[in-house]
Amino acid sequence: MTYSISIEQSKQLKTKPADETLGFGKYYTDHMFILDYTAEQGWHSPRIIPYQPISLDPAAKIFHYGQSVFEGLKAYRAEDGRLLLFRPDRNFKRLNISNARLSIPALDEQFALEALIKLLEVDQDWIPHSEGTSLYIRPFVIATESALGVAPSLEYKFMIILSPVGSYYAEGIHPVKIYVEPGYVRAVTGGVGNAKTAGNYAAGLKAQEEATEKGYSQVLWLDGVHKKFIEEVGSMNVFFKINGTVITPVLNGSILEGITRSSILELLEHMNIPVEQRQLSMEEVYQAYQDGTLEEAFGTGTAAVISPIGELNWRDEKIIIQEGRTGELAATLYHTLTSIQHGRIEGPAGWVVEIPQLKKA
Amino acid sequence: MTYSISIEQSKQLKTKPADETLGFGKYYTDHMFILDYTAEQGWHSPRIIPYQPISLDPAAKIFHYGQSVFEGLKAYRAEDGRLLLFRPDRNFKRLNISNARLSIPALDEQFALEALIKLLEVDQDWIPHSEGTSLYIRPFVIATESALGVAPSLEYKFMIILSPVGSYYAEGIHPVKIYVEPGYVRAVTGGVGNAKTAGNYAAGLKAQEEATEKGYSQVLWLDGVHKKFIEEVGSMNVFFKINGTVITPVLNGSILEGITRSSILELLEHMNIPVEQRQLSMEEVYQAYQDGTLEEAFGTGTAAVISPIGELNWRDEKIIIQEGRTGELAATLYHTLTSIQHGRIEGPAGWVVEIPQLKKA
Repeated sequence: MTYSISIEQSKQLKTKPADETLGFGKYYTDHMFILDYTAEQGWHSPRIIPYQPISLDPAAKIFHYGQSVFEGLKAYRAEDGRLLLFRPDRNFKRLNISNARLSIPALDEQFALEALIKLLEVDQDWIPHSEGTSLYIRPFVIATESALGVAPSLEYKFMIILSPVGSYYAEGIHPVKIYVEPGYVRAVTGGVGNAKTAGNYAAGLKAQEEATEKGYSQVLWLDGVHKKFIEEVGSMNVFFKINGTVITPVLNGSILEGITRSSILELLEHMNIPVEQRQLSMEEVYQAYQDGTLEEAFGTGTAAVISPIGELNWRDEKIIIQEGRTGELAATLYHTLTSIQHGRIEGPAGWVVEIPQLKKA
Repeated sequence: MTYSISIEQSKQLKTKPADETLGFGKYYTDHMFILDYTAEQGWHSPRIIPYQPISLDPAAKIFHYGQSVFEGLKAYRAEDGRLLLFRPDRNFKRLNISNARLSIPALDEQFALEALIKLLEVDQDWIPHSEGTSLYIRPFVIATESALGVAPSLEYKFMIILSPVGSYYAEGIHPVKIYVEPGYVRAVTGGVGNAKTAGNYAAGLKAQEEATEKGYSQVLWLDGVHKKFIEEVGSMNVFFKINGTVITPVLNGSILEGITRSSILELLEHMNIPVEQRQLSMEEVYQAYQDGTLEEAFGTGTAAVISPIGELNWRDEKIIIQEGRTGELAATLYHTLTSIQHGRIEGPAGWVVEIPQLKKA
């Protein structure tokens, strides 16, 4: 399959926000990428155009039946001036796994990555410079056919938008307080929990909102069958260090396979730290806490990279971890992974992809 | 709360499709209703405008996190010329239940119904005349804030669109073949299965697609915890008649509370037929089949009203019901309910709401 990507340059470039005002997902760059799908033509008409609203029929399936998938990754500006992506092939591979689950036609992963790199070339000045900042990349697919029958859409749009984002932690990483959710369920085996699809996030909003009211920043999700085994924390994967061993829930069909998660697993192996991917109950975590063997807990994801957990509220019992401070392992992993991502140290082969830079006039 | 609905008449009315070509959800009327929400202003600016595409930022939350709810109901043209709605108050009540689950601000139910009736007045000529046809009504709410952080949207649109639809059954009701889904799960208690939200429908597409490939028109969903108890069939509620008693799964938090379901329950009570709302396992249905006491099975929903089940495929065992023909009870209920909806017979108080008709010039 060969495509030629047309490029329409924006005539009026935006003023870029100052790095310290970035926050997360509030500003968008000058251009975006679109690829259309119709049953007759397949994926077609790849184009980079000025960032602009899209126009959809009110009966477009995305509005009614949520048929959609997305990805999230980042582009980094290294100190030596190189522009870097972190394992982008993994994102497009996962996008197609999500597509298959949501009955959305597969994308050409290689081409999607080429399109992203082309878009990043065009908007490369948007990759922010300050420590800890990056350009967040959001590829997504939405069902656009105008039809109210419940059936897979015959039309889609694959788009990529870019958003410069600030450092997730203003002053280095710091631990968060997590509420172990007793009632609401994020996903269950046989559902769509292992796909990166819109409905999973909508389903989690209520629990998140109620946890926030109680003074917690995220919820820890338990499995939907037994309400016993640990699944994810907020929209991150989660790791526990108990008595020298790092444990993370095994991928069981309801947990998203995080790219940060698998990178952390590889780093831990390099570090010769024992790792177990298995079922882990809250009872076991609580027992370890009481025994004094619960050493660390942290979430992993693209946005925060590593998010140490300082407190877990389980059945109104407060489990304080590392006296509420960041653990040594979480700090080391955060430092190592962000250093690889920013090109300060070299990671395993293929983890970092350089974005070609345009010559400036 | 008082609102004034502005009306912008379409300057170019569409040609209406012939009744026999309608199908389901393929054509839309000349106008639509929109109401905006912002955190500052609340719900505001109600307006009826020509049916047209809507323009949204590519970062609008509906595209990424699926925060949305919808409803489905119908307007009917009675033989005596009256224009009728069936229990519309129930739909707007349920819309708010869905809103609460999805962290969407509540609507004024009374005003939403007034807005619908006003829109139906404007587009009343679109209510088709032929036997079995109706005007399908789709109220829906979508999150429109442009922000990539996972949090409830600060902006929404509530819209109503209308679509003339054909008779669901070209030649009277006929039984369908249903595949009992062994692997995929639609919803689980603690999730969003009892809300009418987009993600539930996206989650069901794959199972539906695989069932269709096997020659079945819908799947029967089992509970996500034990994969044992009956939940819904496709996007309908489901009823079984076993040894003279009608059994339907009890509302357990993962099943949608269908308005057709509750209307059928009331009709059955009027008919002095014993009814049970309780857990019902596939084992029990299979046992009844073997004992010869499985008398009927049917789905209920707005689109089909009653959809008799002629065959269930469970673990590759074919359970044939009523020799694959429509059962007497299903036929009676279909006849009774559609007769009430079309104003041929009178139903319980408040079930039918008349739409005021404009005087023609």
